[in-house]
Amino acid sequence: MRIDIPYAAELLKTHDRIEILCHKGPDGDTLGCGYALCRVLQNMGKQAKITVDDVIPASFDYMNDNIEAQDFETAYVVAVDIASFDLIGSPAHREKYRDRVDLCIDHHASNTDYAKYTLLESDHDAAAAAETLLLVFYEMGVEIDSSVAECIYTALSTDTGCFRYSNTTSRTLRMAADMVDKDIPFELINKRMFETRTKTYNTLETLVLSTLSTHFDGLCAVITITQDMYKQSGSDESESHPLKGIPRQVEGVLVGVTLKEDADGTYRASVRTNSPVDACRICAHFGGGGHKRASGCNVPGGTMAEAKQNILDVIRTELEAL
Amino acid sequence: MRIDIPYAAELLKTHDRIEILCHKGPDGDTLGCGYALCRVLQNMGKQAKITVDDVIPASFDYMNDNIEAQDFETAYVVAVDIASFDLIGSPAHREKYRDRVDLCIDHHASNTDYAKYTLLESDHDAAAAAETLLLVFYEMGVEIDSSVAECIYTALSTDTGCFRYSNTTSRTLRMAADMVDKDIPFELINKRMFETRTKTYNTLETLVLSTLSTHFDGLCAVITITQDMYKQSGSDESESHPLKGIPRQVEGVLVGVTLKEDADGTYRASVRTNSPVDACRICAHFGGGGHKRASGCNVPGGTMAEAKQNILDVIRTELEAL
Repeated sequence: MRIDIPYAAELLKTHDRIEILCHKGPDGDTLGCGYALCRVLQNMGKQAKITVDDVIPASFDYMNDNIEAQDFETAYVVAVDIASFDLIGSPAHREKYRDRVDLCIDHHASNTDYAKYTLLESDHDAAAAAETLLLVFYEMGVEIDSSVAECIYTALSTDTGCFRYSNTTSRTLRMAADMVDKDIPFELINKRMFETRTKTYNTLETLVLSTLSTHFDGLCAVITITQDMYKQSGSDESESHPLKGIPRQVEGVLVGVTLKEDADGTYRASVRTNSPVDACRICAHFGGGGHKRASGCNVPGGTMAEAKQNILDVIRTELEAL
Repeated sequence: MRIDIPYAAELLKTHDRIEILCHKGPDGDTLGCGYALCRVLQNMGKQAKITVDDVIPASFDYMNDNIEAQDFETAYVVAVDIASFDLIGSPAHREKYRDRVDLCIDHHASNTDYAKYTLLESDHDAAAAAETLLLVFYEMGVEIDSSVAECIYTALSTDTGCFRYSNTTSRTLRMAADMVDKDIPFELINKRMFETRTKTYNTLETLVLSTLSTHFDGLCAVITITQDMYKQSGSDESESHPLKGIPRQVEGVLVGVTLKEDADGTYRASVRTNSPVDACRICAHFGGGGHKRASGCNVPGGTMAEAKQNILDVIRTELEAL
């Protein structure tokens, strides 16, 4: 059932022993929401904990600094920034939480309503789930301390490419201003999120840039990342994140694709588009999804070349339909 | 003489036939201020024009779209974002404007008071001169139309690395929100300023990344750009701008240096630092200057290796003094 902000605030005030779920492949928004909510609930004297069925990149560690590790039997389950149930984690994890999610706070129009109650603003496209969560905090009347502000800022900044992308609104900027007023080290957060280059990252970037190819009169650009490149550069998948932004940055490109070989030999695409191309439509073709300008999917193929051809075929159709 | 915002507003309201000067090596702040002020004055029915004694990068063209080209005899000269008189342009240009600058609107603490009246906020570190200029506009009670908003947004965004750097304040973010509310294509502006990668840029970046060296236990990173690299990649100096951000992004680095060979065979350094290193102090050693975290200077040396050694010697001293 879809609910509004006051209803969500009331649910959080009423319940205790709350377990917060973040999505797999955790990013700044799901983790920022998770840690912010956990901190707020603990500040209220409630028991709260976070569950992430995946590796949390070390760069997000600082958000955990002011969270108390609490062990208790869960009475209420809240999912943050999780559009569909399968994003919760592994099959075993899904089995454990099936039909057990009480409340979901999200900003994906594609949300599948797997939770008992779902809060998704109907009158505003929130750039990050953290925008909606912050409105819930304001409604609850809780104090936004600097730890909470750090988490909310991280979510806002990472989901908008540091306020660059078209999903940013003046509300996003004003919320960021409110967080900056809490005296948070936002420049260090942005440095961590967007700017830190390790030597291994530099080597990986050089390898990956050499794979850049353009298609359909330059309307589409593709880069590919293989397991072998991680080995050659001494890096790993966690360092590949900033590369995803590159293909769409190529001049004249409407569809930017980053095709990654996973450790199990399957291929995963990150698709970023410029107006008017819908990334979500492209990925939906392979059972994936996300946002209009940034989506993801698994791509079938026995080799990288096959996977690339398969997604290019879908992109050709989308571009021809423009 | 230093003046306050109401005084500057009064001067602009009183005078007509106004010529606006931007600094050489024009960036988003000086041009954003210049075009915004020109548009505001023309909207008021005044005669106004912009003078830049340098090539204006084509990426800034959109700011000129709503400016009327007006030819008239100058009665009042306003400099925007120009810290010292020599930044106005060539020796001939300097001769023409010597002792002729009536008003300077700036945000560099190092401003040399070369103008008759200088507006520089004493109680707030403005991230961009455009912040102070916007306050002057608010004081004047003029309408901020979307053309003006585009220019102010460009200045705010470019001077803060899209709201990433430590010079950003909550006021910067709120001003950006006010501009976004004027329905400007901010995502296209940011794309143009930060994200467009040409094929020649990609090649240049690959060449330049291969020169990355670290010094003093990794506290300093240097990249070098030669005229030959422009030739090899088919690029030119105007494409080198985004590279300047790279050295400071290397993990653990406090001083990032980009050393460029100019067409005349001299060497110019762009120095960016992390707290607590003062970039302005390093560059002042060679007669340059700028801001605490981003400064520039010419570096003596007959070869790139000599120039690099010369600036590294100064940086060693600065790091040892920490």
